[in-house]
Amino acid sequence: MKLSIRALLVAVAFAVAAPASAQFAKPEDAVKYRQSAMALIGNHMGRINAQLKADKPNVAAIQSSAALIETLSKLPFEAFTPGSDMVANTKVKPEYFKDTAKVKELAEKMQGEVSKLAAASKAGDVKSIQAQFGTVGQACKACHDDYRMK
Amino acid sequence: MKLSIRALLVAVAFAVAAPASAQFAKPEDAVKYRQSAMALIGNHMGRINAQLKADKPNVAAIQSSAALIETLSKLPFEAFTPGSDMVANTKVKPEYFKDTAKVKELAEKMQGEVSKLAAASKAGDVKSIQAQFGTVGQACKACHDDYRMK
Repeated sequence: MKLSIRALLVAVAFAVAAPASAQFAKPEDAVKYRQSAMALIGNHMGRINAQLKADKPNVAAIQSSAALIETLSKLPFEAFTPGSDMVANTKVKPEYFKDTAKVKELAEKMQGEVSKLAAASKAGDVKSIQAQFGTVGQACKACHDDYRMK
Repeated sequence: MKLSIRALLVAVAFAVAAPASAQFAKPEDAVKYRQSAMALIGNHMGRINAQLKADKPNVAAIQSSAALIETLSKLPFEAFTPGSDMVANTKVKPEYFKDTAKVKELAEKMQGEVSKLAAASKAGDVKSIQAQFGTVGQACKACHDDYRMK
């Protein structure tokens, strides 16, 4: 019950918020925003990977990176604003803006797997973290394969 | 007592972590990381500013941005790695790397004010949020004035 009310409040908050594109004055700002979030996610995925390859993985460092990735995983998608595929330095494919249902599904899948990674990191079992880290990597790749230019 | 133990655990976690520069393969990666964090902070400061100027500020949106800024405010400083002032697109002044005590003081001041902004946002009084938002802006500016090229 508590969760449902929270979900409702979040939904209401989103509904009354200004449209997403109002957060970005120019398409370039939206591109910079999503690329910034992705860059930080990529860096912390790299940090977790490095820890998992270490002889004695630093679980506290993994937890910190995983919690941050969980927060950051929610940011990029509002910044794929209409027309922002025309900015020079973006790698997004035009298909991204057509396949909205599939993109949403892939984004939510990734966010769900990232939350599971944060939970596994908190629990602290390195083998479980390793397995879930691989699953997150696949969830990232699924979207990149289809919607990011090489 | 609880706080002290937590502070100690955090200190130990940092002490056993790899040196900060190990998080960045190249100086360019460190620059990209800190600029990404700063870009997201700047965007969400802009969002809060826009809400505070609105007829009916959306407090939930302000809370969300302020909480995110609080998280992000901890990121940039480990990425000012030695030699990363020589990367072409950085705006950091060489003095940043000499004035370590002052930089630390300014960074901690900013982080403290950002935490107060997150707390004020949670409390929800728009006048208090407005006042603390101004204080955060000044704390950002203090470091930018001295250590960021125009």
